Amino acid sequence: MPEPELIDHAGLDSAVYLRIYLLGLKIFIPILLLTWAILVPVNWTNDTLDKLKGEATYSEIDKLSISNIPQGSHRFWTHVIMAYAVTFWTCFALKKEYETVANMRLHFLQSEKRRPDQFTVLVKNVPPDADESVSEAVEHFFLVNHPDNYLTHQVVVNANKLAKLVGEKKSKQNWLDYYQNKYERNQAKRPIMKTGFLGLWGEKVDAIQHHISEIERLSKEIAEEKENVTNNPKAIMPAAFVSFKTRWGAAVCAQTQQARNPTLWLTEWAPEPRDVFWQNLAIPYVSLTIRRLLMGVAFFFLTFFFIIPIAFVQSLANIEGIEKVAPFLKPLIEMDTIKSFIQGFLPGIALKIFLILLPTILMIMSKFEGFLSISRLERRSASRYYIFNFVNVFLGSVIAGTVLEQLDTFLNQSVNKIPETIGVAIPMKATFFITYIMVDGWSGTAGEILRLKPLIIYHLKNFFLVKTEKDREEAMDPGSIGFNTGEPQIQLYFLIGLIYACVTPLLTPFILVFFGLAYVVYRHQIINVYNQEYESSAAFWPDVHGRIVAALIISQLLLMGLLSTKEAASSTPLLLALPILTIGFHMYCKGRYEPAFIRYPLQEAMMKDTLERAREPNLNLKGYLQNAYVPPIFKEAESDSDSDDDDDETNDKNWQKDNVLVPTKRQSRKNTPVPSKMSAGSSPTLPEIREKDKP
Amino acid sequence: MPEPELIDHAGLDSAVYLRIYLLGLKIFIPILLLTWAILVPVNWTNDTLDKLKGEATYSEIDKLSISNIPQGSHRFWTHVIMAYAVTFWTCFALKKEYETVANMRLHFLQSEKRRPDQFTVLVKNVPPDADESVSEAVEHFFLVNHPDNYLTHQVVVNANKLAKLVGEKKSKQNWLDYYQNKYERNQAKRPIMKTGFLGLWGEKVDAIQHHISEIERLSKEIAEEKENVTNNPKAIMPAAFVSFKTRWGAAVCAQTQQARNPTLWLTEWAPEPRDVFWQNLAIPYVSLTIRRLLMGVAFFFLTFFFIIPIAFVQSLANIEGIEKVAPFLKPLIEMDTIKSFIQGFLPGIALKIFLILLPTILMIMSKFEGFLSISRLERRSASRYYIFNFVNVFLGSVIAGTVLEQLDTFLNQSVNKIPETIGVAIPMKATFFITYIMVDGWSGTAGEILRLKPLIIYHLKNFFLVKTEKDREEAMDPGSIGFNTGEPQIQLYFLIGLIYACVTPLLTPFILVFFGLAYVVYRHQIINVYNQEYESSAAFWPDVHGRIVAALIISQLLLMGLLSTKEAASSTPLLLALPILTIGFHMYCKGRYEPAFIRYPLQEAMMKDTLERAREPNLNLKGYLQNAYVPPIFKEAESDSDSDDDDDETNDKNWQKDNVLVPTKRQSRKNTPVPSKMSAGSSPTLPEIREKDKP
Repeated sequence: MPEPELIDHAGLDSAVYLRIYLLGLKIFIPILLLTWAILVPVNWTNDTLDKLKGEATYSEIDKLSISNIPQGSHRFWTHVIMAYAVTFWTCFALKKEYETVANMRLHFLQSEKRRPDQFTVLVKNVPPDADESVSEAVEHFFLVNHPDNYLTHQVVVNANKLAKLVGEKKSKQNWLDYYQNKYERNQAKRPIMKTGFLGLWGEKVDAIQHHISEIERLSKEIAEEKENVTNNPKAIMPAAFVSFKTRWGAAVCAQTQQARNPTLWLTEWAPEPRDVFWQNLAIPYVSLTIRRLLMGVAFFFLTFFFIIPIAFVQSLANIEGIEKVAPFLKPLIEMDTIKSFIQGFLPGIALKIFLILLPTILMIMSKFEGFLSISRLERRSASRYYIFNFVNVFLGSVIAGTVLEQLDTFLNQSVNKIPETIGVAIPMKATFFITYIMVDGWSGTAGEILRLKPLIIYHLKNFFLVKTEKDREEAMDPGSIGFNTGEPQIQLYFLIGLIYACVTPLLTPFILVFFGLAYVVYRHQIINVYNQEYESSAAFWPDVHGRIVAALIISQLLLMGLLSTKEAASSTPLLLALPILTIGFHMYCKGRYEPAFIRYPLQEAMMKDTLERAREPNLNLKGYLQNAYVPPIFKEAESDSDSDDDDDETNDKNWQKDNVLVPTKRQSRKNTPVPSKMSAGSSPTLPEIREKDKP
Repeated sequence: MPEPELIDHAGLDSAVYLRIYLLGLKIFIPILLLTWAILVPVNWTNDTLDKLKGEATYSEIDKLSISNIPQGSHRFWTHVIMAYAVTFWTCFALKKEYETVANMRLHFLQSEKRRPDQFTVLVKNVPPDADESVSEAVEHFFLVNHPDNYLTHQVVVNANKLAKLVGEKKSKQNWLDYYQNKYERNQAKRPIMKTGFLGLWGEKVDAIQHHISEIERLSKEIAEEKENVTNNPKAIMPAAFVSFKTRWGAAVCAQTQQARNPTLWLTEWAPEPRDVFWQNLAIPYVSLTIRRLLMGVAFFFLTFFFIIPIAFVQSLANIEGIEKVAPFLKPLIEMDTIKSFIQGFLPGIALKIFLILLPTILMIMSKFEGFLSISRLERRSASRYYIFNFVNVFLGSVIAGTVLEQLDTFLNQSVNKIPETIGVAIPMKATFFITYIMVDGWSGTAGEILRLKPLIIYHLKNFFLVKTEKDREEAMDPGSIGFNTGEPQIQLYFLIGLIYACVTPLLTPFILVFFGLAYVVYRHQIINVYNQEYESSAAFWPDVHGRIVAALIISQLLLMGLLSTKEAASSTPLLLALPILTIGFHMYCKGRYEPAFIRYPLQEAMMKDTLERAREPNLNLKGYLQNAYVPPIFKEAESDSDSDDDDDETNDKNWQKDNVLVPTKRQSRKNTPVPSKMSAGSSPTLPEIREKDKP
């Protein structure tokens, strides 16, 4: 499948995500050739390690690494020159790639069909007015300040309570289906349940009857809440989606400051309707700074001190601890197999559970910070996950000891000693990282093609949670590619690869195999398995680029630290120029390409407007945009109430229109998802449910 | 003179500049009251220093400072609480002031009369086109992309060569006047000069004849160059001043991205015509990143290594050195008075000269970086001057030893030991800083009211350089207030004041006297002496605010370092919260107020447009804007050629129109400068010359 078709099929985000792996190949293949041709012979033809034979153990890998070169040798100049070569090649590849991706993005935006978010701007912090409602205030403001461009708007309502009620009703409906199925299978016995917590205690009632009445109650509450949300001015948030007559008008409004007070009438591009994170629209602006500050501090503690509670749990979860708490287990625990199992497994399990939960924790932190689109949330989580990985996986592996000890070491150490401390440890850890790449990278990728983890989770869910056919469908949803967990892991390999490029060239092929394998696997998965959750048009690329540049700078600093201990101090000033040049390169790229990912050029907007006006002069844009940004929960509540109660229909006629959404290219993908192999046979109702879930 | 009148008279920049001194008073008066009421008694009623009587010398000042409190005393809690009080009060005052200044700026912009820069945007990086000239390309691009708003444009020409020629001609004209005067006074002897370097050697010629012929040659060259500049496409830079029909249109264009390639068609607000730094308009965009990087590196070396060349010069400029180079001076130098003079004075003179030249050096560095307006240049120089002062004056005074030694100490020291090292030295240096405030601050301000420095410079110039009446006028120009040298010095007092607020409360009154005195003096100077060079509408306030916040954070870190050595470690975590809170405060202020200094809200623009349309429906805006952005050098060349050669007039008719510039409020100030006392009597021609210089 060629790239344009891939973009067509899976969206630009996925196609560009694959390019990260390709970029890895592009960067490391020439580095491999160069370092093997030059550095390996230079390193090999020394005998430093042979001389140490008696004193220290070393492997053949070390003989090929920088450790084999004697102190103060002039051969270190080769490494300095290679560091320059690696830097220049990486920067060149990065620049090329940035350019390509920026062009792909522009081309994608240009060739796109009409989408509501092209015409729409999200306005936040509408000031309260005693005489006008939010809706009137928005209309007046934009009629005055964008008289030629303003078209229509939709206010944002606080539908969080409604969402909760709808969710509750869904769950009850599910239980009802479960009990009805049970009753059908065994007509003799009407199912009975307890009303208390988790059905463990409380009054015993007839389960089917109880759920039917509960659902009725919830349906009424939902109708009331919907009424309340649409009519109660308190439920209307001081925010609105404002649509314009032209893309030019929307581009102007999104990029300019509207009001004299810079915290009022804040405008930004509206995310795609399916990318909006509706809950956060209700967060007031004043609390955002505080939320961000709090999360910054929380993340700092999470990164450096997460080990404390885990160590505490570990201290409890040993054999003595268990024997103390539950003395009756003593005979069981003292058995040899079980004892060794507990001793080997239990201390690690707290850490493992934490690491599995980490992306979720980071995602919750991002949500708390108040970002308004799912893509922003994922980008934020990804950057935090990368920092966590860098500190705890990379630094934690290089410098033995807990992270806390490291922090203490660093704080009590001179600033320029830090790269030295880490740099010296680098060559010694090559074997470890080769193992890491094979265990985590290769087997992880292999597991991905088998979809081992989802399979296990699916079976676990199937066993414990699935009650009805609908639950099984949901458990089977392959999900999206997960930028927030995948990208930081790739970045770790870039980091390791760049650091070892000049130190232990033997490591590079392992990195290359990872990138090659992962590219093939994820390409397959993207084409055949994953669904796309949203389309951000590769908005994540500046982050990817920035992190590779950061890895490059880290690698240069560590090489500098390493060489300064090798009595090759005269080369240090020459290496000092490298990070400065790299930072300059980054600044250049930022100025040159980043705006393409943040702003929408007026030239582009004007061109599309003109084309559209020529092609469809009689387009009813207002009708098209009117209900594009209705929260999905309304549609869900709608479709639910349709099924039980047709009387509501006239009442909710205004929400009804959504179903005539013009199907665009992206929309059509949603309606015809490529079914995974497993679900293909067993789920004829899947597309139907999908349409209800995400219309 | 009340503030509105002051703004009217001297511009908003000057009025807001005075508010920095007022802010100093507002911050430090309550701090003085609080610290004297609480900290002085707490510090005084200890006897730590009395006990040390025999061992160390101390002054009464030290008895009032934190040094008098015994190690590990619980009294340190008072200082922690006072640090909180100082922080909260300073932040409160800063926020109030930011708000006031932002409102003043908006009010000023709103009440302003029509100015060309309100309608004009500076477009850089117009892409080259084989078929179109720059002028045509600009016109087509903006007609397409801003069809409803585009009005007219003026391309930017590279007039640097022309400027050089005009300057040369002016100088020759001046010499001619000088020789003619000389000849008039003494008709017997025709003045004779040598044509070589500085008139020291070369062929002897008749001076008047020589200069007349030179001026003729230059006039011809100027006419040719002018012809060349206006017609040669190579002299036209890929930049233009684009004017719009409405302020709304200009605000939209300045704040949005125009072209798909984010490095082409860059738009930014045009500075005021008199604020434009014309030379830099000719710098191509690609070199800007490199220039900035270079200057960043250069500034780093300037700050930390400037002492090396000076130490070298100092090593030469001692008695032995002079005796070696010029043995014949030996008997003279060996005389006691001269010897002691050389020994005392010479080593310092290289440093003094460097420090006097420093603002000029920093200004040249900023110019090299390619900023386009004088106000930006001054802001940049100011921020660098502040950093230089902080490192070399503040840190250099606190930690004895050269800056190089310090740098070495810091690099070889652990990160968290740095505030400790400095913090410990702080209380001991109180006496030094009190002397510094008196010598530099008080007497500097007193010297300012007497205008001692300009008086000396004027007399020096008068003696060495002034040849004609015109030269004397130029030497007498009082100049503008000099944001780039004045503001960093005020900031140093903020820094010292905040650092010593909780450590040695005795220092605060000295700071207060400085702020009070300086406010009175500079208010007088601004009203009576200085001329305003440009009006940036207080665009410098975010810098001022940011530097005071930085001073606050530094003071908190140093107090933390100091207390951690006093065995009061338990208070450190509490102090750690302060910088975090302060950074949060800064972020809040940045989001809340900074946009008011960078962007122009559309609401505001629309309001002014609507008002203007109602008041002057038949305004010929095109005529008004047509030649607003002609480089002043053209007008100068124009007025020069008028005086010698009236035939050119028809040729240059297009440049002629400028003289019908609509006089705005600011313009009118230029035409009627308040003459300084000295020049009032002796220069009846001053306004006339001014009009020629800066039309």
